[in-house]
Amino acid sequence: MKVQRVADKLRRFYHYYPGAVAVIGVRDEKNGANFMPAVWNTGLSFDPPLFGVAVSPKRHTYGLLKDGRPFSVSFFPFEKAGLVARLGSVSGAEVNKVEAFGLEVFGGEVLEVPLLKGAFAAYELEPTDRFQTGDHDFFVGRVRAVWEAEGAFNEHGVPTPDRVEALLYFGRFIYGKPAKETRFLKFR
Amino acid sequence: MKVQRVADKLRRFYHYYPGAVAVIGVRDEKNGANFMPAVWNTGLSFDPPLFGVAVSPKRHTYGLLKDGRPFSVSFFPFEKAGLVARLGSVSGAEVNKVEAFGLEVFGGEVLEVPLLKGAFAAYELEPTDRFQTGDHDFFVGRVRAVWEAEGAFNEHGVPTPDRVEALLYFGRFIYGKPAKETRFLKFR
Repeated sequence: MKVQRVADKLRRFYHYYPGAVAVIGVRDEKNGANFMPAVWNTGLSFDPPLFGVAVSPKRHTYGLLKDGRPFSVSFFPFEKAGLVARLGSVSGAEVNKVEAFGLEVFGGEVLEVPLLKGAFAAYELEPTDRFQTGDHDFFVGRVRAVWEAEGAFNEHGVPTPDRVEALLYFGRFIYGKPAKETRFLKFR
Repeated sequence: MKVQRVADKLRRFYHYYPGAVAVIGVRDEKNGANFMPAVWNTGLSFDPPLFGVAVSPKRHTYGLLKDGRPFSVSFFPFEKAGLVARLGSVSGAEVNKVEAFGLEVFGGEVLEVPLLKGAFAAYELEPTDRFQTGDHDFFVGRVRAVWEAEGAFNEHGVPTPDRVEALLYFGRFIYGKPAKETRFLKFR
């Protein structure tokens, strides 16, 4: 490997890709609901169950989240890549995505959050923390309800690629999915 | 989709998988160096370039990171799944993984961090923040140096699956990789 020293901003910052895309959904008086894909997301805690997403202050969604609203995150199959890419192609400040893309929206059962049809899984999240991390803020939410599509998970609740082709993002408008081939590697 | 309300701990928390595995490397007087795989990781900021990993206080690595040491994160190809799985199968509190697994370690160029041969990319990270998030802590580091294997990235620096098969983790000891098929979806 060759090394490159980093002065300030990195010209390319994709080394840890691909990642599963979380589509954030939040109530929005302007549009009714707004949805934004975020690849900078991760699980954070089992007990309580916490999930985090990084959102730039440049995004329309940022103001809604900063307001302390509950939000949803939804996970889509590869076949919905076009929809997810379109959600990331315009801003809710300019476009009502629900109308523009004919989104099929339904409401959360526990929290007042919008959810999208077509996902294989989703969480309703109660906001717990917001951390400033450089040019993004990191929003943490506690899972209050889980949505699961039937058949998308194995007997242990894992979205294995024989059950569902989870949408992956590589950066630079490139989307993909996991290969069918997996390995079970348990050494303990 | 069916909904499940969540009272406290979630029985299954894999809906956002698969994720790319980051192998954390940190200096360790006891073992010389210690390495631990972490699937709860994400990019956080472009400028400055920040990256975060969630680590449980139960882990040997936690004490080392809490100490404020610089650390590395390395990204491996699928063919190294066995090595990465082994790194997660024992604790540095009990086993010197470098000796036990015959690891090939080299030092960072900018920070005093251990790195592992066989990765296709790695960062040297200067710790900037630690946030408490439930039963894990979220450690944030600023990228000070980038390591890249030749040929693992496309012309824009993206690790596309025609260049490298990035190791993915699905949970429950199941490892995988991205499919070769991708889609370029640019709408703006």
